[in-house]
Amino acid sequence: MKVGILGATGYTGIELVRILSKHPNAKITYLSSKHFESQLISEVYPGLQGICDLILEGDDFKKAVATCDIIFSTLPHELTFEIAQMVMDAGKRLIDLGSAFRFDDFNVFKKWYGSNDDIEYDKFNKVYGLTELNREKIKNAQIVGNPGCYPTSVILALAPVLKNRVVSDKNIIIDSKSGVSGAGHEPKFSNLYSECNENTKPYNVAKHRHIPEIGQELSKIMQEEVKIVFTPHLVPMTRGILSTIYCNLGSDITLNEVYDLYQEFYKNDYFIKILNPGKYPSTKSVVGSNYCQIGFEIDEHTNTLIIMSVIDNLVKGASGQAVQNMNLMFGLPENKGLDIIRIFP
Amino acid sequence: MKVGILGATGYTGIELVRILSKHPNAKITYLSSKHFESQLISEVYPGLQGICDLILEGDDFKKAVATCDIIFSTLPHELTFEIAQMVMDAGKRLIDLGSAFRFDDFNVFKKWYGSNDDIEYDKFNKVYGLTELNREKIKNAQIVGNPGCYPTSVILALAPVLKNRVVSDKNIIIDSKSGVSGAGHEPKFSNLYSECNENTKPYNVAKHRHIPEIGQELSKIMQEEVKIVFTPHLVPMTRGILSTIYCNLGSDITLNEVYDLYQEFYKNDYFIKILNPGKYPSTKSVVGSNYCQIGFEIDEHTNTLIIMSVIDNLVKGASGQAVQNMNLMFGLPENKGLDIIRIFP
Amino acid sequence: MKVGILGATGYTGIELVRILSKHPNAKITYLSSKHFESQLISEVYPGLQGICDLILEGDDFKKAVATCDIIFSTLPHELTFEIAQMVMDAGKRLIDLGSAFRFDDFNVFKKWYGSNDDIEYDKFNKVYGLTELNREKIKNAQIVGNPGCYPTSVILALAPVLKNRVVSDKNIIIDSKSGVSGAGHEPKFSNLYSECNENTKPYNVAKHRHIPEIGQELSKIMQEEVKIVFTPHLVPMTRGILSTIYCNLGSDITLNEVYDLYQEFYKNDYFIKILNPGKYPSTKSVVGSNYCQIGFEIDEHTNTLIIMSVIDNLVKGASGQAVQNMNLMFGLPENKGLDIIRIFP
Amino acid sequence: MKVGILGATGYTGIELVRILSKHPNAKITYLSSKHFESQLISEVYPGLQGICDLILEGDDFKKAVATCDIIFSTLPHELTFEIAQMVMDAGKRLIDLGSAFRFDDFNVFKKWYGSNDDIEYDKFNKVYGLTELNREKIKNAQIVGNPGCYPTSVILALAPVLKNRVVSDKNIIIDSKSGVSGAGHEPKFSNLYSECNENTKPYNVAKHRHIPEIGQELSKIMQEEVKIVFTPHLVPMTRGILSTIYCNLGSDITLNEVYDLYQEFYKNDYFIKILNPGKYPSTKSVVGSNYCQIGFEIDEHTNTLIIMSVIDNLVKGASGQAVQNMNLMFGLPENKGLDIIRIFP
Repeated sequence: MKVGILGATGYTGIELVRILSKHPNAKITYLSSKHFESQLISEVYPGLQGICDLILEGDDFKKAVATCDIIFSTLPHELTFEIAQMVMDAGKRLIDLGSAFRFDDFNVFKKWYGSNDDIEYDKFNKVYGLTELNREKIKNAQIVGNPGCYPTSVILALAPVLKNRVVSDKNIIIDSKSGVSGAGHEPKFSNLYSECNENTKPYNVAKHRHIPEIGQELSKIMQEEVKIVFTPHLVPMTRGILSTIYCNLGSDITLNEVYDLYQEFYKNDYFIKILNPGKYPSTKSVVGSNYCQIGFEIDEHTNTLIIMSVIDNLVKGASGQAVQNMNLMFGLPENKGLDIIRIFP
Repeated sequence: MKVGILGATGYTGIELVRILSKHPNAKITYLSSKHFESQLISEVYPGLQGICDLILEGDDFKKAVATCDIIFSTLPHELTFEIAQMVMDAGKRLIDLGSAFRFDDFNVFKKWYGSNDDIEYDKFNKVYGLTELNREKIKNAQIVGNPGCYPTSVILALAPVLKNRVVSDKNIIIDSKSGVSGAGHEPKFSNLYSECNENTKPYNVAKHRHIPEIGQELSKIMQEEVKIVFTPHLVPMTRGILSTIYCNLGSDITLNEVYDLYQEFYKNDYFIKILNPGKYPSTKSVVGSNYCQIGFEIDEHTNTLIIMSVIDNLVKGASGQAVQNMNLMFGLPENKGLDIIRIFP
Repeated sequence: MKVGILGATGYTGIELVRILSKHPNAKITYLSSKHFESQLISEVYPGLQGICDLILEGDDFKKAVATCDIIFSTLPHELTFEIAQMVMDAGKRLIDLGSAFRFDDFNVFKKWYGSNDDIEYDKFNKVYGLTELNREKIKNAQIVGNPGCYPTSVILALAPVLKNRVVSDKNIIIDSKSGVSGAGHEPKFSNLYSECNENTKPYNVAKHRHIPEIGQELSKIMQEEVKIVFTPHLVPMTRGILSTIYCNLGSDITLNEVYDLYQEFYKNDYFIKILNPGKYPSTKSVVGSNYCQIGFEIDEHTNTLIIMSVIDNLVKGASGQAVQNMNLMFGLPENKGLDIIRIFP
Repeated sequence: MKVGILGATGYTGIELVRILSKHPNAKITYLSSKHFESQLISEVYPGLQGICDLILEGDDFKKAVATCDIIFSTLPHELTFEIAQMVMDAGKRLIDLGSAFRFDDFNVFKKWYGSNDDIEYDKFNKVYGLTELNREKIKNAQIVGNPGCYPTSVILALAPVLKNRVVSDKNIIIDSKSGVSGAGHEPKFSNLYSECNENTKPYNVAKHRHIPEIGQELSKIMQEEVKIVFTPHLVPMTRGILSTIYCNLGSDITLNEVYDLYQEFYKNDYFIKILNPGKYPSTKSVVGSNYCQIGFEIDEHTNTLIIMSVIDNLVKGASGQAVQNMNLMFGLPENKGLDIIRIFP
């Protein structure tokens, strides 16, 4: 299939190029970049020399939609809404790596993203693209709202215990640690090497835009409102997210039973790995790959279940999951072109 | 005063050398090292050439006690108990950077540290050396059990709200992130550069030996049993601890009121800095210094108070606080020789 | 083909597992580890869970040779000589990632590696495995001495100008910078995170064991003795080598002519990328991949040619090149199973 | 004395604040910043809260000159020339951390810095501020052109052998490795964490603006033209420069004799540390301090002397040396306020 990537030089864009340029069924035919328009992508990223040497085009979205079977967009929501309309009209497919199509209720989106868009949100044939949970719907969707990186790490970690109502419906504490690539490719003081290196810091405490996305999906899984406390942190590494999650256990359950419950829940999911009781995940075990690893511990003193999940924020947390969704949408095996192991060390 | 450092080549030992070699009232006269006995310390750490060129002695503790006014020990508890007895007998002073003298109840120590020591624990004239909370007792103590790095970051962060009973006596969730120097100077697979770099991982989840130390001190402050969930993490940086702490608010209180409460509580404490509401601490703001910075946020949706504190694990979390205690014990201004700013960037 | 890896838990061993576990023609059937004998490799490296779950065996080399078509050895030379004999006797193939088979003259080996081995070195049907330069010989060799990481980066960078005698036969200055994984997986003070992080240092200056290997190969290419000055450095990153090489230009030649000469020399080499004049390589452009990128500059003021080459020390500098050689030895396309792009960022 | 810092929020500016806010004879009274005008410096750098809380002023240079005894400027040369005139007129002192006053020949400056300034360069009472070499002149200078970071590391390393004509006047190869803070505080793609982390790269090869500065000073020392090849590299650490320098030995000299020669040359220099033969410097041994460490090796095979020097680029390579110069200019001991040890680990 012919693939276009809008916004190809950001970190999720360039990760799509990395994955798709080796995907046996995909052929990248359109790349755009506002910053680097009319340069070769292999000039901007010399590691691609001889591997992908396309010219970066500007914002000719019509051409992209006309010439591609599927569009990946990493652009701001205003532009994505435009593109989505063109995709709908042309009967093509769209996977949006931004936030435009992640919400059930447009008002939630408008509130948290400060949007003044006035569009008919429900007309879009869209689905929330957390592959493992929405596999069937994704197959037929025209538009996939690819999940945020934090939500992917959190929802995968919590789905089994919420679905099985093992935890009480008290507040869930989510403490996430992300590598700096999650902050994007824009030059800002806060992204500079000398600011981030040898530094760990919380940011957007109790205010991060992934909060309503997480809350929406967890509540659907548990079929009642789930309240979360969410604190994201930047740690000095390029890739990887570790989410450490604290829930009150609502019932007597052993660590082995928790393990069995997760194994059962994810038994058919290629990319989800449940760690043996007593083992905890580390981000380095998944970096470069589309895997999510999940481990847990029970603090018996306080009856608290501690769930820990790791993903590569740019792969399972963004571009890898997007390709996983593309595979589903085009009837391919879910792991096609994604069968890469983490790089270690 | 004449100072001896037992175990001078570990990271807390070498940090004592850094600080004390410029302390106007201290003169380092005795250094020991098991690994590097009979080498110059400036051969082991070439940055000290011309600054501190003492020979590293072996374990001649008698000589150390006889020739020094104060001993800093970073040795295992078995040895420290021996040294403590000599110090008591000789009427000298001891600051132990290990865990031997941090506990009120020797059985708690024995249980968590797997100790078979059979000693008369209560005969030691000792005090828990969290300077800001035990200042008066420290002045006259002969033996100071210098706090662990995590406990320092946690207890300082929680003392004002526990003392003022602003939080309900529910479980307190403590999620701490530490630089790798906290894991010590011993060559182990888990401390290797290529294992730790670009990696974030939890360890000793709900089992870390700092749990009883934290619980003991928080319970004394609140005057009832405080239960904690504690998850330490290693993040890829050399120095620094960030503790993110989640408590249920038991009363209606605004962010500004929380700020005022902390300001009042720490108004006379040189090394504690309370950040303005809306500001969060980052480890880099304190690395290299003896400061502790504390910030907070309220998640109104769940009525949760989120407290964030940062220290340099080797300074306020170990050797800096030890020198702060030494200053008190010898009638010096608390910040003598410690008036160093963080290094930034 | 059936593949055995002796010494599978060191960094080159585990990198072989990463690559070979996805190689369409290879099946890993034997893994050994002295340290972790009888554990699952996926317990030692949890990122392999569900991908490679073999048990790590001890040193039963006979079984390895008997059951595998090809053996990769990362063991010390004493053991490798033993294994090589078994491989010869059994008519199997061996790729040695150590230093045992890199030399033409056994006395050079013995001198630099402090070896007392008394073996008949010339009886082994062996070849120096720098793929691009020895392709035809490798195809038929029974034993391949896989090149060192530094030599790979240096010889590839210098071969075109030495072969074409563009540089004068003066001393060549080689200043190499390596990531810490090059120092191996053994716990040592010098490999600890807190020692290496935020640190750049030279080591083994003018004494590194790769000096005779580089000298031997460069001299063969130029067909006269080439003298080199070689200074390796450790820089705080996990993977990657950058070699910056300084040669006196012996003739009038422009930057464009140098470029053309390299392009011509490597025109059939899939993994060698020559950068356009004015572009310089960075290690991050190749990390995770088997590519070598080469750039250059001429300092006209001093008539010096500056050549810069980058590789991933664990891939093209070790395990990737080993698989490239395996492909040749078994009649497969050279890039089979190696067609992976660098991970960026 | 009253001190003003123009451009206080860049990395050399903020390092001046770190050092001077604890200097017993200096009082910071004026800080300017274009980016952060009218904010508190402790809002921009929260680590300074309670230590330095001055308001950042705009570019009111007249006020700065009028109210301060000495001005430190980190501003672009166009502005610095203006300020220098005001300083001259007011009989005050100026230390410029930029490039404006580092040159003997204004045409060299104009050529390398692309400057169109048309000023009477020689009217300024200025001196090149490499403290150890120009100590007497600095004492009386009104304007000090503080050296660049690379030139400091290189000139200190070469002065003894050039002065003593131990090396032949062939080309000298200088291969320098710098931490990323040397690239400044401006947000640019090339300074981003995710670009620099896990990456080593050369830049401005044979074109860096420090080349004429190094050449000018080395030629004065040797009293004949010295030609250099200079390749700077960025390595993934925040602070530190290591320069590895290769010279042809012009005479028979042993390593011990080289050592003696350096010891003699720098016998009165507090901040220069010569390492014992066989020891090589690492950047971590000096980070945070004003020390320069120098080591060497002789490659007998090629008769090459390899000199290695390390400094902290922001301290001895910029702000520390500036304060060292200030001390001289005001009759203070050279190490006043600078007696800080490196931070390790």
